[in-house]
Amino acid sequence: MYALLDRIETKLEDLKRRNFALFRRDFLLSWDKNDDDIVGTLILAEILQELYRDNVSLRAFETGLAVSLFRDKSTRTRLAFSSACDMLGLAHQEVDEQKSQIAHGETTRETANMISFLSEVIGIRDDMFFGRGHAFMREVAAALGDGFAGGILNHRPAVINLQCDLDHPTQTLSDLLHLKRFFGGIERLRGKRIVMSWAYSPSYGKPLSVPQGVVALMSRFGMDVVLAHPQGYDLSPDVTAKAARFAADSGGSFRVLHDMREAFRDADAVYPKSWASYRVMERRAELLKRGDLTGLGDIERECLDENARHRDWHCDEEKIALTRNGSALYMHCLPADVQGVNCEAGEVSRQIFDRYRLETYREARHKPFIIAAMIILCCFRDPISLIDGFYRRKRQRAL
Amino acid sequence: MYALLDRIETKLEDLKRRNFALFRRDFLLSWDKNDDDIVGTLILAEILQELYRDNVSLRAFETGLAVSLFRDKSTRTRLAFSSACDMLGLAHQEVDEQKSQIAHGETTRETANMISFLSEVIGIRDDMFFGRGHAFMREVAAALGDGFAGGILNHRPAVINLQCDLDHPTQTLSDLLHLKRFFGGIERLRGKRIVMSWAYSPSYGKPLSVPQGVVALMSRFGMDVVLAHPQGYDLSPDVTAKAARFAADSGGSFRVLHDMREAFRDADAVYPKSWASYRVMERRAELLKRGDLTGLGDIERECLDENARHRDWHCDEEKIALTRNGSALYMHCLPADVQGVNCEAGEVSRQIFDRYRLETYREARHKPFIIAAMIILCCFRDPISLIDGFYRRKRQRAL
Amino acid sequence: MYALLDRIETKLEDLKRRNFALFRRDFLLSWDKNDDDIVGTLILAEILQELYRDNVSLRAFETGLAVSLFRDKSTRTRLAFSSACDMLGLAHQEVDEQKSQIAHGETTRETANMISFLSEVIGIRDDMFFGRGHAFMREVAAALGDGFAGGILNHRPAVINLQCDLDHPTQTLSDLLHLKRFFGGIERLRGKRIVMSWAYSPSYGKPLSVPQGVVALMSRFGMDVVLAHPQGYDLSPDVTAKAARFAADSGGSFRVLHDMREAFRDADAVYPKSWASYRVMERRAELLKRGDLTGLGDIERECLDENARHRDWHCDEEKIALTRNGSALYMHCLPADVQGVNCEAGEVSRQIFDRYRLETYREARHKPFIIAAMIILCCFRDPISLIDGFYRRKRQRAL
Repeated sequence: MYALLDRIETKLEDLKRRNFALFRRDFLLSWDKNDDDIVGTLILAEILQELYRDNVSLRAFETGLAVSLFRDKSTRTRLAFSSACDMLGLAHQEVDEQKSQIAHGETTRETANMISFLSEVIGIRDDMFFGRGHAFMREVAAALGDGFAGGILNHRPAVINLQCDLDHPTQTLSDLLHLKRFFGGIERLRGKRIVMSWAYSPSYGKPLSVPQGVVALMSRFGMDVVLAHPQGYDLSPDVTAKAARFAADSGGSFRVLHDMREAFRDADAVYPKSWASYRVMERRAELLKRGDLTGLGDIERECLDENARHRDWHCDEEKIALTRNGSALYMHCLPADVQGVNCEAGEVSRQIFDRYRLETYREARHKPFIIAAMIILCCFRDPISLIDGFYRRKRQRAL
Repeated sequence: MYALLDRIETKLEDLKRRNFALFRRDFLLSWDKNDDDIVGTLILAEILQELYRDNVSLRAFETGLAVSLFRDKSTRTRLAFSSACDMLGLAHQEVDEQKSQIAHGETTRETANMISFLSEVIGIRDDMFFGRGHAFMREVAAALGDGFAGGILNHRPAVINLQCDLDHPTQTLSDLLHLKRFFGGIERLRGKRIVMSWAYSPSYGKPLSVPQGVVALMSRFGMDVVLAHPQGYDLSPDVTAKAARFAADSGGSFRVLHDMREAFRDADAVYPKSWASYRVMERRAELLKRGDLTGLGDIERECLDENARHRDWHCDEEKIALTRNGSALYMHCLPADVQGVNCEAGEVSRQIFDRYRLETYREARHKPFIIAAMIILCCFRDPISLIDGFYRRKRQRAL
Repeated sequence: MYALLDRIETKLEDLKRRNFALFRRDFLLSWDKNDDDIVGTLILAEILQELYRDNVSLRAFETGLAVSLFRDKSTRTRLAFSSACDMLGLAHQEVDEQKSQIAHGETTRETANMISFLSEVIGIRDDMFFGRGHAFMREVAAALGDGFAGGILNHRPAVINLQCDLDHPTQTLSDLLHLKRFFGGIERLRGKRIVMSWAYSPSYGKPLSVPQGVVALMSRFGMDVVLAHPQGYDLSPDVTAKAARFAADSGGSFRVLHDMREAFRDADAVYPKSWASYRVMERRAELLKRGDLTGLGDIERECLDENARHRDWHCDEEKIALTRNGSALYMHCLPADVQGVNCEAGEVSRQIFDRYRLETYREARHKPFIIAAMIILCCFRDPISLIDGFYRRKRQRAL
């Protein structure tokens, strides 16, 4: 146990100096959180990983429910959420909208309370429609505040954003933790160049949450953040404005380039990934609202045609050769469109993907711990003494 | 802990005086249970709520399964069941009939045993077809008795009715607990007037379980129970006969009226809710058995037309003004058809619903605790010493 | 506790003498396992049953995930897996391929790792397509080995075969345990005649996993194993060759007969069950690969016609009368096609099935314990001291 204590001691000390503002709040958008919340979540996730590795039980709840609402397909985030909840002792119960009847307005307020009587966390994924996901999460969060204020709920459950139309914080904080560990510390990120680049995919309409989340997060730590995409594939101007301000505040930089090769030059990390522009997303949301199927078909065809003009936005040996020492870290939230594996032409060549395959797994495996750290910070007033209790009680996870 | 003990002491004393007949039995129909079982369940649910509020772990099982079988859509009851099971330490596993192949007869007997080898509770919802739900639950219960007698099952799991064609006891006991707390005690219900009233809804074929369960339950506690509905919307005569007998035995009364305004006059509590008459339900069950789709279409149209003739059976400001001091408690099992919210015309006006919204949430939040109390009474020979153990071992639910 | 200790002591002593090769391995095919793994799993399952009966908590994990992947319908195996995992303290999370997008090749490797970051066990059912199920399980297992070697996974989860195209070890080990208990010990099986017989069913394409698993397992214990089927309903020659070799090694025998009556003569146990021949399975797999729907329709019709020629392969009073003392043990993995119950003509007569109904339940109820034993042997280096700890810590399963 001493060896473990040694390993986590500095981290615990660091944690003690942080001012958290998450208790009884939600984790919806990283850009609404202060630096202590962000970095604290990372450090706590690392501590949990160390304790888990040493077979220390992280059971913080004897009983309790974690409810999830998935409005889009998901294997990995679902499992990551399940793993995080189970790790802390919560039972994961999924609310299936096919089997129920969740709608907006009054009904959201009601359902939010009904699923929360004995819940600690509500995890929501709603990334399909621009303008909807984040709004829905805020609606749920408001209803929970209302139910708690009205004496209905014993405590206010935390809403965790498992991907919305704007941001994907459980993913981007995992990405950040991966960068931190790869480069040897959060301070070492200062001056490092990271490229969030659009890349060609044969599919259409991938959410903006990852690219938006990445530029708005990495710009806070003094990194040189480059956003690269063909003309017309813009992210939401609100979010890029935030990235620019964060960069200015943190002593980093934020630039938008329209040339993948130029962007890759001297990069320390690259994140090539497809998305649809926010303007397309807005038009699509409008058509969906009107139920205009012809319009939706038209826009899909139009977008696929436009995508096809940018097949050269592809991460391969030649592009990676342009990066710092030809060895920038390749990043992806997975699953990637790998050329010759799951598509004819896609975001990345098989060669590059294979070289970095285990790195992308490392990036991904932080996610359950990031989610668990968020839950702890949202549910426990004193996370330090919780952690302290974990290794003091010497309870083994597996006998 | 002493403060808590003070709060629950009287309730524990009361509980000790009760004679429970639930151990190793099922909870299918409230009218088959004795008063001690009913009132004891309420008191136990209140004790559990107090303990939960004080962060006392209610884990009664280290491991164990609770299996549910939902033959109708459900978000709330599903979550309430999950919450109740998790609260006691049971893992909830749902048996999905789409993914399996459960049928009647021999197969029910077999499946009942197969899902029960390590189960403590089987929760069933089967409310779609009149004449089927309760029969199916009894079939499962008999199979479990058979399996236990044959030495197949280690113990006999309890079957809990999560809504059948006849009754919905987890709902109506929550309703009763709500009444008890609202009026300040079960004894205070004596002489209070409660109106279970039909109300207009644009949908068709809502089950009889709630209105039947309400009149057959509330009539046991000396209340003046009024059942109100347009001509032709009768409940099952068996059930109304039970209500009449209970009322006579308890010193209350039971009347059927066909005028909503007259019914609401001087009411202390009103429960306006749509249902289909038992005669329609019987015809529908017959048509379903024969697979007569034309007949089913005809009956639906006929019923919707009939419903439309009773749009004035609507709970609004003017009706509530007729109740005692114009302030009767509005009750509903949720979700309600609220005019201008989820329907153009429905059971209740927005104004009334909004005024009582938090009350309906309070009514609903008893359900997980009612279910947990039922499980405890069915699974533990000595519930008092179980509760005693809960606060003696001082185990916190959340660290 | 002493009484319990007495009951399990001999079994524990026996267990100590076994050399297990399962730790950090998988349980895919029984014929790849050594005798100690097989018999040890049985003994451990019996010990777990004794402890469970005495209300001893078998919680080996404070937290941890068990992930299942069902590529075919299943109620019983699903529940058995859930029960086994819950018994040991693992939360069961099912990965639904409809809601995700699991494919072969690179993607299997990736998904296998993504679902395993905090998992102890991966249970897979994939029995629909000949040539695929076992291959898929090996692919997953290889990916997990790869992920562990690459430092991605904290430990290597065990893959448990919950039925593949070739074998169904959780079923056949339950069958073997049933035989062991019925005849009074594994040694008592020596010289006993067991008949794995094809039987008529109105359905088509039942997997080969059970008959193959049964002949390849029972032949290891000195039994006289008879495989009986009409001409053309052959099992895979690889598997029958294994059965023959096992029989030779164990001092038993293995014969194939094409006459049900002859096969039943002097049998001690009979296992009449429908299947499709491996040649049909191979052709079908080929047609499926080519998406040849006409071909698939043709083969189905052809097979049903062929089946119909063998309606006399039916287990009834007259056939059972041929067995040793007219009272061979009737076995089935359930659900059986029972004549006059769930089909007009089927594997077994109602009379026979009813006589042995409780025996088939006994056979089935071993399964959760067999699965739990497999998990323990795959996840714990020292299963003896785990069991020792279970009864030493005196933790009750239910309070």
